[in-house]
Amino acid sequence: MRKGVTIWEPSNVYDSAILGEGVSVGAFAEIGPNVKIGDRTRVGKGCFIPEGVTVQEDCFIAPHVCFTNDLYPPSGKENWKPTLVKKGASIGANATIICGVTIGEHAFVAAGAVVTKDVPDGEMCMGVPALVKGERKHA
Amino acid sequence: MRKGVTIWEPSNVYDSAILGEGVSVGAFAEIGPNVKIGDRTRVGKGCFIPEGVTVQEDCFIAPHVCFTNDLYPPSGKENWKPTLVKKGASIGANATIICGVTIGEHAFVAAGAVVTKDVPDGEMCMGVPALVKGERKHA
Amino acid sequence: MRKGVTIWEPSNVYDSAILGEGVSVGAFAEIGPNVKIGDRTRVGKGCFIPEGVTVQEDCFIAPHVCFTNDLYPPSGKENWKPTLVKKGASIGANATIICGVTIGEHAFVAAGAVVTKDVPDGEMCMGVPALVKGERKHA
Repeated sequence: MRKGVTIWEPSNVYDSAILGEGVSVGAFAEIGPNVKIGDRTRVGKGCFIPEGVTVQEDCFIAPHVCFTNDLYPPSGKENWKPTLVKKGASIGANATIICGVTIGEHAFVAAGAVVTKDVPDGEMCMGVPALVKGERKHA
Repeated sequence: MRKGVTIWEPSNVYDSAILGEGVSVGAFAEIGPNVKIGDRTRVGKGCFIPEGVTVQEDCFIAPHVCFTNDLYPPSGKENWKPTLVKKGASIGANATIICGVTIGEHAFVAAGAVVTKDVPDGEMCMGVPALVKGERKHA
Repeated sequence: MRKGVTIWEPSNVYDSAILGEGVSVGAFAEIGPNVKIGDRTRVGKGCFIPEGVTVQEDCFIAPHVCFTNDLYPPSGKENWKPTLVKKGASIGANATIICGVTIGEHAFVAAGAVVTKDVPDGEMCMGVPALVKGERKHA
């Protein structure tokens, strides 16, 4: 059962994905098997969130954000790494998240960034590869 | 009424979006509320053009181009900035456009660029963040 | 006839595209006219592979990968360049491939890269623009 979840069609949300209360998912998005999305998190148009990714509550995942789960694809799970996005984090449009990282609480990833390392709580990062640039200044 | 507009399905074009004569929109694209697209502009497969963006006539928006409308998402419109793409501009595949910029007449944005500043008329830019590299040489 | 091909819906695969045995194509992908995809190659969710691109057998094209076919769009084919991905190559998520390049056998393109030059056989590249960083170490 998914309580108060809004999914725009067409999108592909696997049955085993667990979506919290008040989650929204944009059109053309795919959320893979066993993914967990916390309460009130919003997933934008066209995002890709594969198995191995966990997004906590109150996050904002902008359109076209692309997560991964395999460091050296295709490895048949040998090199799969889990990815965690902690509560209140915001990930900008078209960012790419290399698997195995943790994006901290209320951290901010700028649009178009390629995240290859952990982002500390409350910090913001940008660029390719993404570099931490200091405190997140907004909300 | 939309005269001579071609929209490939599936795509999400909001009813309040104004599409000029001869506009085409690729599949898996989303064009948000109140967006204006000028005559003969072509929008590629999978593009995202949200509320707050205006694209003038005779532009080429390549596949996967991702516009934004919020500088510090999610801000609930507090930090929304309008974006303008002037006539004849060409934006390359998978480019990301940070809101608040103007892309000049016949300007060119290279594929994969992340545009964070205005691009002058007739100039071309590339990279992350996108840097202006001189005159657009073609078309 | 396409033997043992799996296409997730919705996706747009042109009738004239030639897909080898055991090819899979993710949802929200577009494969254009006359594209050739070799046996067992996997094309991820949301990829864009337009006319002019050839992908050989046993390749892995991760989600959101965006190929191009026009160096100076829109040129009406005047500046179209063919792109070749050789057997066993792996292209990471959300990479952008500028047309005219050859990605060598078993080469590896990191996620988020923008490829502007050839990638030699067995090498890996990353970044914007993508730089070759040495031998591919996995698979």
